Parts: sequence; structure tokens; C-alpha cells
Amino acid sequence: MSRPKGETVSPSATVRTRPGGRSERVRVAVMDAAVNQLAAHGYNALSIANVAREAGVAETTVYRRWPTPADLAGGAVAHLAQTDNPVPDTGTLEGDLHALLSQIIKLVERPEVERILRAAAALDGGNAMSAQARESFWQTRFTAAGRIVERAIERGELAPGTDVFAVIEHLVAPAYMRVLLTNRPLDDELLEGSVRRTLKAFDAAPAQNPA
Amino acid sequence: MSRPKGETVSPSATVRTRPGGRSERVRVAVMDAAVNQLAAHGYNALSIANVAREAGVAETTVYRRWPTPADLAGGAVAHLAQTDNPVPDTGTLEGDLHALLSQIIKLVERPEVERILRAAAALDGGNAMSAQARESFWQTRFTAAGRIVERAIERGELAPGTDVFAVIEHLVAPAYMRVLLTNRPLDDELLEGSVRRTLKAFDAAPAQNPA
Repeated sequence: MSRPKGETVSPSATVRTRPGGRSERVRVAVMDAAVNQLAAHGYNALSIANVAREAGVAETTVYRRWPTPADLAGGAVAHLAQTDNPVPDTGTLEGDLHALLSQIIKLVERPEVERILRAAAALDGGNAMSAQARESFWQTRFTAAGRIVERAIERGELAPGTDVFAVIEHLVAPAYMRVLLTNRPLDDELLEGSVRRTLKAFDAAPAQNPA
Repeated sequence: MSRPKGETVSPSATVRTRPGGRSERVRVAVMDAAVNQLAAHGYNALSIANVAREAGVAETTVYRRWPTPADLAGGAVAHLAQTDNPVPDTGTLEGDLHALLSQIIKLVERPEVERILRAAAALDGGNAMSAQARESFWQTRFTAAGRIVERAIERGELAPGTDVFAVIEHLVAPAYMRVLLTNRPLDDELLEGSVRRTLKAFDAAPAQNPA
């Protein structure tokens, strides 16, 4: 799995000079292990003991930060999103929307990500992710992706006051509906069509103040 | 639950004169019972024995037509969709899209429908609905709703060759994403916004050949 370059740290160099260095390495190790376990065994078999073993940390370390499998899976999704779906900044709204949706399609095509997504959409109760965890994850993601819209407003490509979340929702919802419900293909027509329709739906104009 | 008037039949009048009359009454009774059981106990507790008892039919009658709880739930969704989400025909594309999405929002706000939807989005295996049942249900629904688009093309509101499924998907996907993933509200902004954006996204024009 790719990871921002800054996170590959040498233990001896950072533990003392950067507060949180070890804590951050533990977080990344646990999240990578959680993603691997999800990929190998699915959400229902996600066990804190196995994740701790694979990450090489004590179980209590995992429990303290991620008390339930739902927390662990939620954290793993957020981790995946940060590392493999960074918010693009290509200089144009069309470029950003295209890059974002393209990343999302690549992500949800991965079997472990599809599994997490289905667990997130499943009924509450039992092992399912809580409504609160779901809401908080999506709020965070939409806020991050919303920078695309804010920058487009600054460049004059979208009208001031454009509903930031609506643009992102409009772009990505058909892809999620295909994965979760209809099983229609995540193909180029979906990618190109969703971008083109989102630009039209929100009256996007060419940039007036190019970045 | 509302039901098209034509389906309320008098047993003595129809069993002999209309082939399939009794079979149709059994189907409706079983489907109503399945919807009620889903509403009362959720998808995971859906039992063919209980549905048969409530419908007043033999268990074998249910098993023959709906061999698994997934089949029963799938049938119940299709039944709900036919009775409570008939494809509108208001005379304009805007009116039809508005009526369709409004019906869908009312449907998915019902707890038993949300439960079925989450079960449909859950992982395959176990009690979850099969990918095949999912695909077949949505294919049927999109084809039915696609009549809205075809009529709009006939009236000159949409260009010939407009992607029929894409229009419907575009209209409804944000609502399903809110229910299944983000928990954002199913409010008027969603309804009006989705209709307005779909009209723009597909370059809808006023009718040239009004019905």
C-alpha cells in the first residue's frame, strides 16, 4: 500500500525529536494490519488479537485506541482514504473531479474495501459499524473533498454559495450505488459520465482566475 | 399498505373465471406477510414458517416459490416497489422525476424498507441477498423507471439516444447513498436538488411534443 513519503520514519531519528513519532508508527502498523486482515478474512472475522499480532503490538495497545472491530474497520477505512485517496489539486475543477472519482473507483474495486463498504452499509447492531462511526467518517471525507469545490469557487469555475457537499455527493453517489446495490460496472462511462454530468448540474464555467 | 385497486378481488368471483386468480391472492398474502415480518423483526429474523403462518398458507407453498429468506425479502421489495412506487406518468419529465424520487424517499424512510436495503447491500453469504437477486431486482426497476426517460425523449425533452439508466441512476443515487452510507437527511433539498441537477445534467428541454 502506498503511503505519503513523510511517514516513513527512522525510529532512532524520530522517537525523541518528534512527539508522537512512535505513536504514529504504531497507528500505521495497526491500520495496515487491519486492512490486510480485512482483505484476507473479511469484516466478520476481524479480530483485535490477530491485528495486534500482525502489527507486532500488544492487544491492549489496539483496544485502547480501537475498542471494537467496528472502530478498527472504521479507522482502516479512514487510513485507506488518507493514503490511497488524497484530495487531488490539479488546477481545474474538471481535473480534480476526474482524479477524485478515479481514485474512489480504484479503491472500491479492491475486495477488502468493498467488504468494508458493505459492512458499513449493513444493519446496525452486532458487528456492523455504528451509525455514529459512519456519519463521522463521511463528514470527514466530504469536508476534505470539499476543498476541490472551494478552490473551484475561488477560481470562478463555480458560483459562490455552491453547495459543497452536494457537488461531491453528486459526483460519487452513482459509483457507490453500483457497488452496493445494482452491481453495474465501474467503467469509464461511469467515470467520464459522472464528471461531465456534475460539471453541468452545477453550471461549472471555465476558470476565471486560474491558480 | 396501499395496493392497486384491481388487486382486491372477491375469491368466488375470480378463482374460476381468471386463471391464476388464487395464485395471485396467495402471492399478495405472502408478500404482505413478508413485509410485515420484516417490519416487525428485521431481515435476520425473517422465517418462512412465520411468513406462511401470517399469510395463512402452507409452508411448502412459500418454499416452492421463495426457497430462501433472501428470495422472500427480494420478492417483498419487488412487491413494495410495484405497489408503493409505481412508475409515474405526469406528462412532463420534471413532474415524473419529482414524483419518482419523492416516492422512493418515502419508501426508504420506512424502517422495514431501510432494513431490506441494508440487507441487500450487506456482504454475500449467510443470510444476505445474493448478487444475482440484487442485479435482477435493480435491472427490473431501472427498466420500469426508464419509461420516464423514453417518454421524455418522445416528447422532445431529452435528446434521442440519452442513456436511460444513467438518468434514473443520477436521480436516485444520492438518496440511496444518504440512507446506506452518510446518514445525511432525506429532505426537500435532496428531492428538489436531485431533480434540478438531473434535468441540467442531461440537458433537458421543455417538451416539444406535449403528451
